[in-house]
Amino acid sequence: MSLRVTFLGTGGAVPTTQRNTSSVFCRREGDRLLFDCGEGTQRQMMRFGTGFGVSHVFLTHLHGDHTLGLPGLLQTMDFNDREAALSIHTPKGTAGDLRAMLEAAAGRPSFPLSIRGVGDGDVALERPAYEIRGFGTDHDARSVGYALIEDERKGRFDRERAEELGVPVGPKFQRLHAGEAVELEDGTVVEPEQVVGDPRPGRRVVYTGDTRPTDRTAEMAAGADLLIHDATFGSDNAGRAGRTAHSTAGEAAELADRADARRLALVHVSSRYAGSVAPLEREARERFDGERAFVPDDGDVVSVPYPDVK
Amino acid sequence: MSLRVTFLGTGGAVPTTQRNTSSVFCRREGDRLLFDCGEGTQRQMMRFGTGFGVSHVFLTHLHGDHTLGLPGLLQTMDFNDREAALSIHTPKGTAGDLRAMLEAAAGRPSFPLSIRGVGDGDVALERPAYEIRGFGTDHDARSVGYALIEDERKGRFDRERAEELGVPVGPKFQRLHAGEAVELEDGTVVEPEQVVGDPRPGRRVVYTGDTRPTDRTAEMAAGADLLIHDATFGSDNAGRAGRTAHSTAGEAAELADRADARRLALVHVSSRYAGSVAPLEREARERFDGERAFVPDDGDVVSVPYPDVK
Repeated sequence: MSLRVTFLGTGGAVPTTQRNTSSVFCRREGDRLLFDCGEGTQRQMMRFGTGFGVSHVFLTHLHGDHTLGLPGLLQTMDFNDREAALSIHTPKGTAGDLRAMLEAAAGRPSFPLSIRGVGDGDVALERPAYEIRGFGTDHDARSVGYALIEDERKGRFDRERAEELGVPVGPKFQRLHAGEAVELEDGTVVEPEQVVGDPRPGRRVVYTGDTRPTDRTAEMAAGADLLIHDATFGSDNAGRAGRTAHSTAGEAAELADRADARRLALVHVSSRYAGSVAPLEREARERFDGERAFVPDDGDVVSVPYPDVK
Repeated sequence: MSLRVTFLGTGGAVPTTQRNTSSVFCRREGDRLLFDCGEGTQRQMMRFGTGFGVSHVFLTHLHGDHTLGLPGLLQTMDFNDREAALSIHTPKGTAGDLRAMLEAAAGRPSFPLSIRGVGDGDVALERPAYEIRGFGTDHDARSVGYALIEDERKGRFDRERAEELGVPVGPKFQRLHAGEAVELEDGTVVEPEQVVGDPRPGRRVVYTGDTRPTDRTAEMAAGADLLIHDATFGSDNAGRAGRTAHSTAGEAAELADRADARRLALVHVSSRYAGSVAPLEREARERFDGERAFVPDDGDVVSVPYPDVK
């Protein structure tokens, strides 16, 4: 199952010529999900070829640099004669304000639009093999982060061992892999545990939106394959990060390290680092022992492999 | 006096990777004026180096592709600690809706913001040497176009003739040029008409926003140095242009020709011409006998010289 993240906007509150305001596109097989939607996101989607077939939008909070691309996106979807429903998920208590903003700016689209509040621990989206769960964050607005959490996958089927036990190649293989015992022609019963390994973990991608580093994020990001964390500032602006309820790259890295995340993407980079993000990456790499801490560029695509795949 | 137009967004209702939604920046000496402000305009301003020192914004109508960049622009101005007042001019009867949209999307900025309605014939801005005047247009929303109209300039001062008449080089030259008679040492009186030519016309730049071609626009664009006109479609989509209250490139060109405009910029180009705008330019040039009809690219800068300057 493919799982890919496209960074549409990696900049902070004010865009630069290089970094647009916040948006992260995620494609899991056929599902297209959008996290935050700063001004200009629709054009980033065109530029980076994500298509407009998004079914769900997840907003971390209602600040303009995370939401002002929504009215135009809805209008473009309307112009394209969209008929499919769109669900927007927004922090609990903000649905009314969001609806008022969208109606004032874009009117009502002709396709069905639902807006739902998401609180800490709420499952915003449930799919057969994964869910999107909200978690509380710490910003100067009502805010939530989102975790894409895949179900465990079945253990590996030991085909060689099954053949040794006399299981004939064919449907009994599938039944064993699905967890059923099977009886062979000689009356022997083979239990699934004999030929199927332990369940293997699914993948986990966590996106914080704007936030101070928190224990709750560390908990949700435990073992995450990809943690996308606020890193508005470097440690040179640690005081400002605290006052504005953002994080430094070093703080994000410490959290990622503590959570034992595999990779860390540093986003929401302040325009003051437009010249170079090298200092942010350097301070993150000093404190993060995972595979990679990096500041993505707009348009970067990151594939998220299964953790047991080397 | 320099007068330059920067095309920030030349696309139609839906942006493309090449053309952003509508916005035209105009700089006349120290004054920076913005006409319409589609989503992403602030980033176009960064990309094309206009600066954010805009004092007046003129909206032709409240459709999203002309206004959705305003909330983000106001927020960025706020982030930049702007203190100067900003005036937004909007079609008469739309100020309340505009204010509601801006407050829902961006809150209230900390610098002074005024919003004023503009009707047909209203002077939206009066400056010592020019004015911005609104004029009625024909779109499927309350709409106005804007004309930047410079005052007449003084006639040319005929220095040679003045010397022949015995006027001494010095302050009497200025007084004559300013329209005063002067008395020479021998008692002769020199009248300004003897040494100053006829007043010379100022420049005129006309921006329609979205509209059908109208007589009123032709009247306002009479002798315009630059007419920036809706040219959403080509004649292949003339029916659609009528139904959606837009113009074809050919219709814009006919109007410009009738108004005896000097140059014609065709804007608000539909995304269906993303591949090539050559057909639009071709049909315009067939019907426009002025100096030049063209589809500007985003970022193009056009200087507007005085009509008597070759």
